[in-house]
Amino acid sequence: MNEARLARVMEKMKEQGLEQMLVSDPPTIFYLTGQWFHPGERMLALLVRTDGSHRLFLNRLFPAQECGIALTWLTDSDDGPALVARYLDAHKALGIDKNWPSRFLLRLMELSAAAGYCNASPCCDLVRAVKDEEELELLRISSQTNDSCMAAAARAIRPGITERELAQFILECYQKHGAGDGVSFPPIVAFGEHGADPHHGNDDTPLTPGQSVLIDMGCIQNNYCSDMTRTFFTAPPDEEHRRVYELVRRANEAAEAMIRPGVRLCDIDKAARDIITEGGYGPQFNHRLGHFIGLEDHEFGDVSSANPNTVQPGMVFSIEPGIYLPRDFGVRIEDLVIVTQDGCQVINRYPKELTVLSL
Amino acid sequence: MNEARLARVMEKMKEQGLEQMLVSDPPTIFYLTGQWFHPGERMLALLVRTDGSHRLFLNRLFPAQECGIALTWLTDSDDGPALVARYLDAHKALGIDKNWPSRFLLRLMELSAAAGYCNASPCCDLVRAVKDEEELELLRISSQTNDSCMAAAARAIRPGITERELAQFILECYQKHGAGDGVSFPPIVAFGEHGADPHHGNDDTPLTPGQSVLIDMGCIQNNYCSDMTRTFFTAPPDEEHRRVYELVRRANEAAEAMIRPGVRLCDIDKAARDIITEGGYGPQFNHRLGHFIGLEDHEFGDVSSANPNTVQPGMVFSIEPGIYLPRDFGVRIEDLVIVTQDGCQVINRYPKELTVLSL
Repeated sequence: MNEARLARVMEKMKEQGLEQMLVSDPPTIFYLTGQWFHPGERMLALLVRTDGSHRLFLNRLFPAQECGIALTWLTDSDDGPALVARYLDAHKALGIDKNWPSRFLLRLMELSAAAGYCNASPCCDLVRAVKDEEELELLRISSQTNDSCMAAAARAIRPGITERELAQFILECYQKHGAGDGVSFPPIVAFGEHGADPHHGNDDTPLTPGQSVLIDMGCIQNNYCSDMTRTFFTAPPDEEHRRVYELVRRANEAAEAMIRPGVRLCDIDKAARDIITEGGYGPQFNHRLGHFIGLEDHEFGDVSSANPNTVQPGMVFSIEPGIYLPRDFGVRIEDLVIVTQDGCQVINRYPKELTVLSL
Repeated sequence: MNEARLARVMEKMKEQGLEQMLVSDPPTIFYLTGQWFHPGERMLALLVRTDGSHRLFLNRLFPAQECGIALTWLTDSDDGPALVARYLDAHKALGIDKNWPSRFLLRLMELSAAAGYCNASPCCDLVRAVKDEEELELLRISSQTNDSCMAAAARAIRPGITERELAQFILECYQKHGAGDGVSFPPIVAFGEHGADPHHGNDDTPLTPGQSVLIDMGCIQNNYCSDMTRTFFTAPPDEEHRRVYELVRRANEAAEAMIRPGVRLCDIDKAARDIITEGGYGPQFNHRLGHFIGLEDHEFGDVSSANPNTVQPGMVFSIEPGIYLPRDFGVRIEDLVIVTQDGCQVINRYPKELTVLSL
């Protein structure tokens, strides 16, 4: 149990007037207890109470270390929410974590287990959004590995290589760098017009010289995620492609340049979006500017027009503007940044100047 | 849109007196529309209404084919549940799918979007539990591949190989057999005492001759999952290990022998459990006997003491008794069965006689 982190969560609960909440996201439970559980369809919940009487509800199939929190073991034939209800104050509101499957919540409601239910996930997520020093160091290490593997991937690009082969090469590179336990997400490798789909699924298309190569990749090292996108050319781009690339790069750099404590996340999104819109490609930048990252690739919090919250030191998020031209190509340039006391540190360092690879 | 499947779902809704439900599980949406979406933290919902006015709510990032269902597109800055609420009848109850993240449900509740909320997931899941002929054939093909790769894995067992290496070998075998798009779950390879943890995480321990080898593996082929467990010896087992193995095998075979339409799932669990309990190892069989399977490795429905439902033709589930002796070893023997008109077909055929591999 990480007392300092749990105390920060309880503080947020008190601010909301909440005395009890169920934490269920496995990364949050890891963050608070140091233990990973992968519940699949089984119930997992950590009851956090501001009076300190916390309790972890675990299926017997998940081995747990002693971590200073009371345990209730479940079997596959137990009614999990009914066991949880025994430890709830039915006359008080109950906070619920954002991703808890609805079936458990609906069952608690059937049992009248609490006086009301609210999404209390921000009590944990706002705490997780501000990383401590140990976490920042692990995030830097993970992004250093990502830098090395992006460089290796760029060198591996040659005529005829397929998207799947290049993705596999990246996975093997992570293994070699000691980041073999998983990836933030399967590497996205998109040649030419495939780059116009921000979530392209790699296929067996071989690379034709002249196509652009978009690579979006991230590893998990010591439990912390990296995430970076670069877009390469394999022949000198025509004027429009060059203009699109430079617009995206300017949007990326302008956003990064304005990050400092107190700035609103929506204003960072707007700065990047305005540049792309003024360049004539507003509708072709069809996603938010960035997402928070840490134990998960996409954590609570984003850099979007819908998020008026302000930036705080220790926050870590992506800056990833893009322009997508269907049946032509796409450009995205993505970095991770750590907010510092007076600005930000960009923690992946792979260059982002327009690069024409010689194949 | 698969009209026949959707009609079966609507029939179940009518039986429950429900006129509207939100389907959100990606495999169910694939089952009904033929399209996979991977929403991550973004909202995904298919509103099914018994008057036929269905509607799919999709983030613009997810490319969709025309499938005969009205679409509402969302962006990252939209309030997804508020858009859904516009199409709901606020004076009627709303069915919710089992895994929809609680934050979306709590937001609908804030908006008073319906007169009440219930877990209506069985309306879909009971339909999916009874496979049609096309699905049964794909399940057989997937299990044939699993048979071939289990045989190859058994031949690859040699002194010094690590659990991770054997798991990697299995993954490559799936690739070679055209089942390279994913696995039901990462292969579990457990040597010796690691076999006592039903969900062991593979490590770099090399195999020592004399250790048992438990392999639990399954591929995804044409979207359908396989799943099989075998336990091998690498030296003649002592008397207790032999007795444990034969108890598990008898439990597996007794359960499979009694499967036919009309039998209760809890009674199948009991038949296997009684054999293991009479043999003195009841507490060491600490999980349910089996789970349903299809588009997902673990689907709704299980073979457990808590499930009194009866078996129907077309159901497909696992039969996987086990005995786990901490700090010693573990045995699990798992098959998949298809319920037929008068019994069942075991669709993986790899032998389950006690086998001592010569290394």
